[in-house]
Amino acid sequence: MERKQEISKAVVQRLPRYYRNISELKAEGVQRISSRALAARMGLTASQIRQDFNCFGGFGQQGYGYNVEKLMEELGSILGLPAGRTAILIGAGNLGRALLNNFDFTASGFVLLCAFDANPDIVGRRFGGHEVRPIDTLYTFLDQYKPDVAVLALPRRLAPEMARDLVDHGICGLWNFTGEDLHLEGLGVPVENVHLSDSLMTLCHLIHMHTKK
Amino acid sequence: MERKQEISKAVVQRLPRYYRNISELKAEGVQRISSRALAARMGLTASQIRQDFNCFGGFGQQGYGYNVEKLMEELGSILGLPAGRTAILIGAGNLGRALLNNFDFTASGFVLLCAFDANPDIVGRRFGGHEVRPIDTLYTFLDQYKPDVAVLALPRRLAPEMARDLVDHGICGLWNFTGEDLHLEGLGVPVENVHLSDSLMTLCHLIHMHTKK
Repeated sequence: MERKQEISKAVVQRLPRYYRNISELKAEGVQRISSRALAARMGLTASQIRQDFNCFGGFGQQGYGYNVEKLMEELGSILGLPAGRTAILIGAGNLGRALLNNFDFTASGFVLLCAFDANPDIVGRRFGGHEVRPIDTLYTFLDQYKPDVAVLALPRRLAPEMARDLVDHGICGLWNFTGEDLHLEGLGVPVENVHLSDSLMTLCHLIHMHTKK
Repeated sequence: MERKQEISKAVVQRLPRYYRNISELKAEGVQRISSRALAARMGLTASQIRQDFNCFGGFGQQGYGYNVEKLMEELGSILGLPAGRTAILIGAGNLGRALLNNFDFTASGFVLLCAFDANPDIVGRRFGGHEVRPIDTLYTFLDQYKPDVAVLALPRRLAPEMARDLVDHGICGLWNFTGEDLHLEGLGVPVENVHLSDSLMTLCHLIHMHTKK
């Protein structure tokens, strides 16, 4: 498939949302959908959707709409999802356990191999079917199994050093929940910093603007 | 303060990140900071920061940089943070409890009043100091205490109806963790839909692009 242009960051940020909605449609048994129906479902406009999809060469046919299965395949390939990447989780405290118990890694194309923690009360236990291993076996594990991504759920102060060590041992992406902002520039691998507070503050701003009207 | 122009969505999305970094600087005792130093800390460029802040009329002084306290105040006011908003949480399952136990609502300018759940085993317990009340007392509570925001951590299938009921009882914003996409257009109040999987898929895409280079 030919890319018509460099994909803008804003479009990239909408991609997972498209992928999620399309995979839900597939699960619901929908085989094709018009840009208008997809727009209504996602709270976007049909022209926005057509414009976004045009960035990737367009997937639709005039008068037919989008083939759900093909669209899901194409979006997944752009997202790099079919690669079957592996992940580990560092830090099985409250947040780490909430992720282990609740987050569906498989639905995002990841196999979560196991978690690591320093606390002997937690080591050896399983959460959501995932074993917690002792942190001092981490580097042996990395060298042997070469996981792609590390999920950081350890205390914030330990994050920068742990991130560097992980990258040195071949980790090629970080999903970072520690509150510490980590950057590609500093580490040489992509990072997604998750700050739930940013989302709540955005809501605050939206309410502020909405009630002023 | 005069706004020079309508604030773009991209800038708005960076605002909480600015606010978070500035409040950390304040907590570290920093009184002023140059756009260059702030850029290095945040993994942005200095010109990006100056451009963003110019959207709000600019806060800096040539050769001095930014006054941290004043900047925090101004950003907080744009975000609508000083309003001292109140919140409730619906659904004290795994995810709800992770939020109650770990998330610092106060740091985002919110007072979390209490949580609600239907499960008698959970009702009456406290998580992170927050009481879980029976769901059948919710509407009485809403009418009496008029909280601003509801955090949705209940099962997804219950989300649309609950959202409508909450808005009917005066809730003016939703922080939605259920996985169901809710929209301002349908509900008449702002919604922040949190999809952690979107963040993981974005990481996937970034790794995909990074390793292709």
